Amino acid sequence: MLSHPITGLVAATHTPFHADGSLNLSAVEKQAAHLLHTGVGRAFIGGTTGESHSLSLAERQALAERWMEVTKGTALKVVVHVGANCLGDVATLAAQAQDLGADAISALAPSYFKPRSVSSLVDCCAQITTAAPELPFFLYDIPSFTGISLSMPEFLSQGVERLPTLAGIKFTNPDGMMFQQCLYHTEGAFSILWGTDECLLAGLALGATGAVGSTYNFAAPLYLHILRAFAENDFESARREQRRSVELVARLASVGYMGAAKAVMKILGVDVGPARLPHTNLDAAQEKALAADLDAMGLLSTEFRL
Amino acid sequence: MLSHPITGLVAATHTPFHADGSLNLSAVEKQAAHLLHTGVGRAFIGGTTGESHSLSLAERQALAERWMEVTKGTALKVVVHVGANCLGDVATLAAQAQDLGADAISALAPSYFKPRSVSSLVDCCAQITTAAPELPFFLYDIPSFTGISLSMPEFLSQGVERLPTLAGIKFTNPDGMMFQQCLYHTEGAFSILWGTDECLLAGLALGATGAVGSTYNFAAPLYLHILRAFAENDFESARREQRRSVELVARLASVGYMGAAKAVMKILGVDVGPARLPHTNLDAAQEKALAADLDAMGLLSTEFRL
Amino acid sequence: MLSHPITGLVAATHTPFHADGSLNLSAVEKQAAHLLHTGVGRAFIGGTTGESHSLSLAERQALAERWMEVTKGTALKVVVHVGANCLGDVATLAAQAQDLGADAISALAPSYFKPRSVSSLVDCCAQITTAAPELPFFLYDIPSFTGISLSMPEFLSQGVERLPTLAGIKFTNPDGMMFQQCLYHTEGAFSILWGTDECLLAGLALGATGAVGSTYNFAAPLYLHILRAFAENDFESARREQRRSVELVARLASVGYMGAAKAVMKILGVDVGPARLPHTNLDAAQEKALAADLDAMGLLSTEFRL
Amino acid sequence: MLSHPITGLVAATHTPFHADGSLNLSAVEKQAAHLLHTGVGRAFIGGTTGESHSLSLAERQALAERWMEVTKGTALKVVVHVGANCLGDVATLAAQAQDLGADAISALAPSYFKPRSVSSLVDCCAQITTAAPELPFFLYDIPSFTGISLSMPEFLSQGVERLPTLAGIKFTNPDGMMFQQCLYHTEGAFSILWGTDECLLAGLALGATGAVGSTYNFAAPLYLHILRAFAENDFESARREQRRSVELVARLASVGYMGAAKAVMKILGVDVGPARLPHTNLDAAQEKALAADLDAMGLLSTEFRL
Repeated sequence: MLSHPITGLVAATHTPFHADGSLNLSAVEKQAAHLLHTGVGRAFIGGTTGESHSLSLAERQALAERWMEVTKGTALKVVVHVGANCLGDVATLAAQAQDLGADAISALAPSYFKPRSVSSLVDCCAQITTAAPELPFFLYDIPSFTGISLSMPEFLSQGVERLPTLAGIKFTNPDGMMFQQCLYHTEGAFSILWGTDECLLAGLALGATGAVGSTYNFAAPLYLHILRAFAENDFESARREQRRSVELVARLASVGYMGAAKAVMKILGVDVGPARLPHTNLDAAQEKALAADLDAMGLLSTEFRL
Repeated sequence: MLSHPITGLVAATHTPFHADGSLNLSAVEKQAAHLLHTGVGRAFIGGTTGESHSLSLAERQALAERWMEVTKGTALKVVVHVGANCLGDVATLAAQAQDLGADAISALAPSYFKPRSVSSLVDCCAQITTAAPELPFFLYDIPSFTGISLSMPEFLSQGVERLPTLAGIKFTNPDGMMFQQCLYHTEGAFSILWGTDECLLAGLALGATGAVGSTYNFAAPLYLHILRAFAENDFESARREQRRSVELVARLASVGYMGAAKAVMKILGVDVGPARLPHTNLDAAQEKALAADLDAMGLLSTEFRL
Repeated sequence: MLSHPITGLVAATHTPFHADGSLNLSAVEKQAAHLLHTGVGRAFIGGTTGESHSLSLAERQALAERWMEVTKGTALKVVVHVGANCLGDVATLAAQAQDLGADAISALAPSYFKPRSVSSLVDCCAQITTAAPELPFFLYDIPSFTGISLSMPEFLSQGVERLPTLAGIKFTNPDGMMFQQCLYHTEGAFSILWGTDECLLAGLALGATGAVGSTYNFAAPLYLHILRAFAENDFESARREQRRSVELVARLASVGYMGAAKAVMKILGVDVGPARLPHTNLDAAQEKALAADLDAMGLLSTEFRL
Repeated sequence: MLSHPITGLVAATHTPFHADGSLNLSAVEKQAAHLLHTGVGRAFIGGTTGESHSLSLAERQALAERWMEVTKGTALKVVVHVGANCLGDVATLAAQAQDLGADAISALAPSYFKPRSVSSLVDCCAQITTAAPELPFFLYDIPSFTGISLSMPEFLSQGVERLPTLAGIKFTNPDGMMFQQCLYHTEGAFSILWGTDECLLAGLALGATGAVGSTYNFAAPLYLHILRAFAENDFESARREQRRSVELVARLASVGYMGAAKAVMKILGVDVGPARLPHTNLDAAQEKALAADLDAMGLLSTEFRL
């Protein structure tokens, strides 16, 4: 077990594409600058929000390289998501992340063929931690996408024995009971990152100190308000901001979350291009209506944009 | 819409059986006394914890009658769950609850045949509110049991137009975003009851003011500590108690939650008998081990038992 | 184990209602006459097609009584479905069926609270077979409705030891491998009734000799053609008829299967009224369009109607 | 639409690995020879049985190349599975298959991010057919793995307009009604390949003329008996063989299907090595027991092995 506390907001970044869908590495610099501008300390790259499963191995490698170049010497740390169905590719990505000096790695389990037991899941993870023996490793638990529902406390129990670099879990799972069980596991030694932006306040109440999500890309100031208000026991403010977050997420989901979220980035001046298939994208009229709504919600002020 | 704020803890009570599985109405008095002793203000009777689907109509009617007799003149209010697959039975139970002077009624949707749209769900509810036009009505949303996942904000939008007595939702659903959307619906006019005991603290942070669940039958003092600690911004205490709740629920679930929960009642001196099939029950050795663990967790003190 | 071969077509009958949704027992006589007219030998009453979960216990009892009266002295045999969530009600219905002299009983498992193992399922069934010790018992396996997916071969293995009257399974399950395993279990001693009308021909190929379903209420002659053609190795005819069946089912499903199926009965002169909530019903225009399509499909000839 | 009838048995081949899990292309020659020896006319390579999702892009390319080399000039045709989550990789594989002169290509849909509509699924497929405009394309529908349940008749309706090379569906879906609807679509112009080996006889009855599956790798003679018996209306023989197939599949599934199936290949003299994680493999004792059982089932005769 490798202690590696991650606190505060971690943005699960988008992978930038050109209009034709090809990788657009030139946008990464602006993404990084924008995160720093809005108060985010860590980027989680190439995860679900980063459309990892729609990227080739070569694209994922190029993306990681670019993020490490761009963030070198800045305050922004990079967690590289290396999860994939092919564990050989996963090991390649993990080794690269270590070579590049990433802050940590994270991986979801293979999900076309699924591990059927915690023990099998740990077997899969062992291939990752072996490939990057010096990097803290975070399991990425996201049952709504993977269809894998295994006990995370049991994973920590087995992992603490067999995965020397296990540092925590990216917990994108609505099960608040299991979240607490993980938080208290091994005397609180693991970082259990809250993964539900629209309920961040609930996570804080239960004891979360770090959170990772996609809306931290474009609305971090809102969540920093929540963190401050919570620290000051100002629940009225905290709830008001959380409510804005809920309204934002509902608005985006109503027109296809991924495409809409990438449109928000463009509206904020950080053009990350369209989402790849099978995601859908907004047309010009939808984009215009979205911009108007974001403005009305107070999410286009200079606090939020570069 | 009928304003009917429900605040504080509502215990989803067990239906008491004799050792042979037949209804044991003589236990209700003790259940009520125990709830009052432990600081619970409302009993939710004949719901999931009450094994409603394993009861005959006649048993449900006798149970409601007994609860109303026993609580007459006490501080304990009774919410009668009237939901069932047969809407004719539901109407019968709703009318009876009104005749008996219950505090409110609640119902889950038919779930063998499922409503396929919010509009169809409202159609089903209209048969209930028509049968008890003077009682506040709470929809009971519990997707993990019913397999019905409909939008609750949309339900409130349609319900406010068509269900004159709609007062809120018993929200046994892990979706914290939808919880907030319901809480803020119609300017906060509805009571949205938090249904996840082991995450009560998360609910309070998000704005919950009332909660309904099964562990409030036997561990209400623990949760009252959480409520107090939260009100005083003492998160250390609140989390410590919530953690005890998590450990309690995990302990019970490890041997079959329903049978174990009824065993806890017996251990506390309120014998509600075994659970009916298809639930399983603890054997004598399991019950003894459970009692020892509850004692070690500090849950058998006089604060908790009659 | 009680040998009770059921062969040929068993119609899973509709429960007849008046226009206001109340039970209309006067229609049963016509239903029975129509089944006999169209060549059906057995009625399966009060099952999924019979909207059992939407009926009160009293209605189910009245329904069984009426069917037994009406079929007395005729060639039509009656299998009474007695399954329900409340096992007490199930036992009551089973005992009544035996008293009334039914041909057999069948029951699905409780499904709000679900048996979690085959052993628990057999425990539930034991309450049924005890209540009707002289009637052949058929488990009703329908995972798409109950959400219960247990091994049926394992059920037979345990059932043959513990359920003296177990005679077979109403197999409404698309798993053709499990169907074969049941068919060959205990040297073919059980009746495994094929439950997928629109694939009857597949069942026959695999060895099915009996089938139960809802379209046998209104299109039995079509399926009798399939049985004959199959017996004569005339696959061209068999497939042509099976294709008509597929088109019929698709047509009904496109406007809400249950309501549409009851409309077909009315169009054929056997008015069984509307379906109860949460099912939906056809409006007059939809009914008219349906009648035209049935006519075009050749399903309104005198072969099909009284 | 590109007419390309595929009839008879298509074996969904295993991808051969060395004992350490690395790709073992030297085994392909023997696999091909074994298929020809046992009467199989087509190999479907790199699909679910081929552990496609556990292979890197480079491995998939090398595998396709090897199969095309090995089968050149033989009677064995090769269908290359090109499906993956990353549509860029899919296009690369499709173009390669065309360059190599494959018989056809097939692809499942991206399934981490899922197409939410038939129209979106067709959009995904259009990227494939554009990349290999001269090769017949078969959609691979396998909801139990992908979690995607879309209407296949509707897919054909839209596909016939937008996918010039659409030739059919690899139908690994238990829905026999939908199978028939696809079979009759566009006047029977598409090849709808039956994907459930253990119910092949059911498929034949419904009209299937081609079938693709994993047991055709090691038990093709058994299924050829079924095909012959069916053609001769000898259902007794056909069912007896189908029952052997059911017993075989049940035996393999009882110890982890994929690992067991690869062990069968080794037992038959065609060593394709172990399965990759997250699949599990048999230990030596399990392998020995399996060999004994296969022998007892008559599946190790020279008819079955090289």
